[in-house]
Amino acid sequence: MRIVEISRDECSEFLARVSVGRLACALDNQPYIIPISFAFELDRLYLFSTLGKKVEWMRQNPKVCLQADEIVDRSTWVSVVVDGTYIELREPDHIAEKEHARKLLAHSEQWWLAPMVGRREQAGDLAVEPVLFRLNIDSISGLRATPES
Amino acid sequence: MRIVEISRDECSEFLARVSVGRLACALDNQPYIIPISFAFELDRLYLFSTLGKKVEWMRQNPKVCLQADEIVDRSTWVSVVVDGTYIELREPDHIAEKEHARKLLAHSEQWWLAPMVGRREQAGDLAVEPVLFRLNIDSISGLRATPES
Repeated sequence: MRIVEISRDECSEFLARVSVGRLACALDNQPYIIPISFAFELDRLYLFSTLGKKVEWMRQNPKVCLQADEIVDRSTWVSVVVDGTYIELREPDHIAEKEHARKLLAHSEQWWLAPMVGRREQAGDLAVEPVLFRLNIDSISGLRATPES
Repeated sequence: MRIVEISRDECSEFLARVSVGRLACALDNQPYIIPISFAFELDRLYLFSTLGKKVEWMRQNPKVCLQADEIVDRSTWVSVVVDGTYIELREPDHIAEKEHARKLLAHSEQWWLAPMVGRREQAGDLAVEPVLFRLNIDSISGLRATPES
């Protein structure tokens, strides 16, 4: 296996193709990771989440990191890492962008709507609304592994 | 799909079974994620890495988070999150434990030894030695999703 860095363009193509990654946020220098769906657009990612630890943390510290990978086998994979800034899409400031994000993320709805209802029931909270947010991309880097020829 | 929390024992069984996850560290509240192999033992994980950004960061801030998941399909998955503390296995203090960790992680060697050599060549550095470290587990939590019956 040989590991090489890939270009910004290749990272962008990769992020446009995949739709699930892991998001890390941090509070008081304690990091926290969760798997998450995202939609990529040029210099930003759109994501959504139910209210909870990660949204509370990102509201306090907007510095985040998103990592996505595609592993064919142990010697054939791509991994891309994005450093970014959390921007919550709130009304009335972000009505149009929120609608745009919701459309981009529509393919994930089926996956998340039912469990959201389930979690809501567990929490006894009927008012849980998904939080939509934008991740402004500050930097991207990526590695590709290929079998040694 | 229904999402439920799983017990500490179920999390442990899961971590004993899988061997690849994502590790997040943080510096100045900026998180950073990388995919990584690990070996689980009761109250700790063993991992290794080449020298670089993540080891430099963890030496400065030992608070880390490891997440591992197993996704069968969109409504059938397990995700476990560990908050932990980085302890580097250095000689002469950790000779026996370092050897123990090396044995536990031997299955990952084939995957990593060749690319380590490649990266070493790229960096023009012939002295790169893998850094072995223990992650003391401070807390574990896990979620399991199952299709709605």
